[in-house]
Amino acid sequence: MTILETDTVAAGSLLTVANLAVEEVAAILAATDRLERMAAPERAKILAGRRIALLFYESSTRTRTSFELAAKSLGAMTTLVSDKSSSIEKGESLKDTGLTLRALGAECIVLRHANSGAPYLLAKSTGLPVLNAGDGMHEHPSQALLDLRTMLTRLPGMSGRLINGKTLGGVTVVITGDILHSRVARSNAMLLPRLGARVVLCGPKELLPEDALGLGGADSSGAVEIERDFDKALKQTASNGTMVVMMLRIQRERLAGLELDLGDYISRYQLDEERLMARAPEALVMHPGPMIRGLEISGEVADGPNSAIEDQVRNGLAVRMALLVRALGAGGFESVTV
Amino acid sequence: MTILETDTVAAGSLLTVANLAVEEVAAILAATDRLERMAAPERAKILAGRRIALLFYESSTRTRTSFELAAKSLGAMTTLVSDKSSSIEKGESLKDTGLTLRALGAECIVLRHANSGAPYLLAKSTGLPVLNAGDGMHEHPSQALLDLRTMLTRLPGMSGRLINGKTLGGVTVVITGDILHSRVARSNAMLLPRLGARVVLCGPKELLPEDALGLGGADSSGAVEIERDFDKALKQTASNGTMVVMMLRIQRERLAGLELDLGDYISRYQLDEERLMARAPEALVMHPGPMIRGLEISGEVADGPNSAIEDQVRNGLAVRMALLVRALGAGGFESVTV
Amino acid sequence: MTILETDTVAAGSLLTVANLAVEEVAAILAATDRLERMAAPERAKILAGRRIALLFYESSTRTRTSFELAAKSLGAMTTLVSDKSSSIEKGESLKDTGLTLRALGAECIVLRHANSGAPYLLAKSTGLPVLNAGDGMHEHPSQALLDLRTMLTRLPGMSGRLINGKTLGGVTVVITGDILHSRVARSNAMLLPRLGARVVLCGPKELLPEDALGLGGADSSGAVEIERDFDKALKQTASNGTMVVMMLRIQRERLAGLELDLGDYISRYQLDEERLMARAPEALVMHPGPMIRGLEISGEVADGPNSAIEDQVRNGLAVRMALLVRALGAGGFESVTV
Repeated sequence: MTILETDTVAAGSLLTVANLAVEEVAAILAATDRLERMAAPERAKILAGRRIALLFYESSTRTRTSFELAAKSLGAMTTLVSDKSSSIEKGESLKDTGLTLRALGAECIVLRHANSGAPYLLAKSTGLPVLNAGDGMHEHPSQALLDLRTMLTRLPGMSGRLINGKTLGGVTVVITGDILHSRVARSNAMLLPRLGARVVLCGPKELLPEDALGLGGADSSGAVEIERDFDKALKQTASNGTMVVMMLRIQRERLAGLELDLGDYISRYQLDEERLMARAPEALVMHPGPMIRGLEISGEVADGPNSAIEDQVRNGLAVRMALLVRALGAGGFESVTV
Repeated sequence: MTILETDTVAAGSLLTVANLAVEEVAAILAATDRLERMAAPERAKILAGRRIALLFYESSTRTRTSFELAAKSLGAMTTLVSDKSSSIEKGESLKDTGLTLRALGAECIVLRHANSGAPYLLAKSTGLPVLNAGDGMHEHPSQALLDLRTMLTRLPGMSGRLINGKTLGGVTVVITGDILHSRVARSNAMLLPRLGARVVLCGPKELLPEDALGLGGADSSGAVEIERDFDKALKQTASNGTMVVMMLRIQRERLAGLELDLGDYISRYQLDEERLMARAPEALVMHPGPMIRGLEISGEVADGPNSAIEDQVRNGLAVRMALLVRALGAGGFESVTV
Repeated sequence: MTILETDTVAAGSLLTVANLAVEEVAAILAATDRLERMAAPERAKILAGRRIALLFYESSTRTRTSFELAAKSLGAMTTLVSDKSSSIEKGESLKDTGLTLRALGAECIVLRHANSGAPYLLAKSTGLPVLNAGDGMHEHPSQALLDLRTMLTRLPGMSGRLINGKTLGGVTVVITGDILHSRVARSNAMLLPRLGARVVLCGPKELLPEDALGLGGADSSGAVEIERDFDKALKQTASNGTMVVMMLRIQRERLAGLELDLGDYISRYQLDEERLMARAPEALVMHPGPMIRGLEISGEVADGPNSAIEDQVRNGLAVRMALLVRALGAGGFESVTV
């Protein structure tokens, strides 16, 4: 399902992390640093008068608002087209909606869509830089980048910067929950191993089939493992270097459909204070949100000192500014040699 | 149901009018005056580059657009999160949505929510200034402030300013309609008596139970009365000083549920030209909107010379500019001694 | 159904093309040219700090986003009120929503509404300039203007300007599809004949009743014809000067309701490459969107060299800037003598 035909896609697009070179990741993170440190009035000049379209076929709070505020902070105009109140309802194709936005002067489209590969189709048909804000069960590349930045700024011994493809050496990332349906898991499982991290996927068979080992793609083979026992996954890794626990949202409806017992799931897979303290008291806790407190994660852990959940959101805003600057080819985005 | 634990709430919040000192009200009104008189380009610098989140769990036209235009007029960026197209649908808690908005750099959240007390919970969990844009059947404090400003600028003998806690002395405010479910009635019944006004609640038992006398809280005891006969309420008060008639929207469905006859309700409680001219020809007519012409109010009265309905909207925009400036601690908001 | 009582409507309104003098059309097009050529920062000063309300009772992508981006490009603030999340749901009348927007400082309202004549009612009750963004089956005047500009800039021998009421002399415009329900067809059938064009309406009886000949109003009598055979319409006109083929969207549901066979409709009325090349290889192809590829038009034709569909969108943005400048009486909008 990984889409690599990027020769027909405008530079500055971000459709997948699959083909993102370490140098490119480093350049995005360096631009993020610069933009974050910049004074607001100076930042508001970077994309002044430029037009950015937000095309959301699925509902979203944090991804949509962070792209929107990132664009506005850079001085750009935004227009939001959502499935709730648009010609999408009338059966217009994604291609035609994209061509319309281009003709309206949009210089970049941020797309969330239920179909895997939709951002690639949009990029190909419009020739515009497209930023994938989540496509079906495929990818959520800006999420993987903000997760990476969160690790680089919160984990001990990290400088906040990507030095090279070994920067995350010694780091184990346990991703737990509904792996099967998670574009966040997929993008992280692709990106993190290429930077030196070991990725452990954790969850019951129903949510984590055996073939999920191939999730990270060919490049990450060997660096992605499955451990169904959450306690073992936490214990083993804690003794083994630095650890990140990334919890994924569980949809009640999905559990019911799979005949998984909610209570049983909670007792085996919820990250609560007791489990965290017993198994991995130093672990950095992450969650892409929206989270359901009391289901996959306890409120105590979500709000506790190990939690980097708000850092993730903050980094999301900053990383997305860098992605917009990169997409529009504006000044201040420079390549980085690692 | 009144919430007073404001020690844990950020300064600049407006959750209730219950604990708003006369001095604070006067300061808000003074800032409103200054902001309204300011030239547009100057005003647009006050909150330039600042971020304000509009979080609306219930639909709204005038409150949402007036907060939005107030924020934009001050130069701020806004982002709207509504229940229609957000993670709210996915079950995310109010607390987590609030923490997300804070992490995205929002410096103030304007909240409308179906649950009484929701703004307090949001203020407590985020530490951000929160402006209550209506919470269930509890309060709508910015509405009470704009209603107050409308009285101060439209009633004879008023200077447009709040002088002291007797400024509304001699003014009778008849609030008529669905008192039971009205957050507007509640906020007004709390605020106005503390400024010297006498409040008369009017409506059938089904919409105005006997215990509504306590609506205004302990401070206003004695100053809030019930008079079920609308004609008497109008007549009695008209002979008795300056009068305001505040009409509330009646939801058809509610009347049906209560087995109240629509025709009967209209004949007893509609404010029409004949009734107004016969009983209280000098009264100032107000309505928080949306109104249903021909039900609680006739079109003639709504559009007539006694009506202050459009002034209310205009004052809403101006008062909300002041509330945003106060919330963000921006310059130009000074305390006032009364 | 044509509404002409414009004496009670604010100057700068655009409710219909029926009473738009050739001089006014020329002035709008001249302002469009100037605004399009202007540098972005200069353009952003024209309506800086001004407030424009977008009131959409029906869903829309291109019309709403183009008015929104036009307003923002001119530096104006916008607020969007849609039927999805507003007091419209609570039964508020159009008049009261309009009065509310006026009291909030909106200086112009852009309205889309399901009822024919709604923009006129809004203009009359608010006194504000109103731009009709489509009212029921009545009119879509800004669409007719953008269509006109597309013809003037794409047809051979045209200068991009309107010279006089004969500028489109020799041009035949074949409008094909669901004429009966199309406000686009109606506005074009009114405007184009007055500029010298011949309009041929094409479609089966069910979608194009005999009395549609009166569509263009009294002024255009004689200049609007009906030809039910699409091939004949194309052939005849092609040999006869310059040709435009304007395709209209067909709603599947409508065909089913009329017991029209989809396959049959496609074979008789779809504009595909074969039909276009055989009958009218030089014709300019237009479509107001949203289009359904494979139904009324083939993808090849939509994307082919004859297509002006993206030009229409681009011209929509530019023409709407001019309409907003005209509505707000801002500098830079001058009368034109033709």
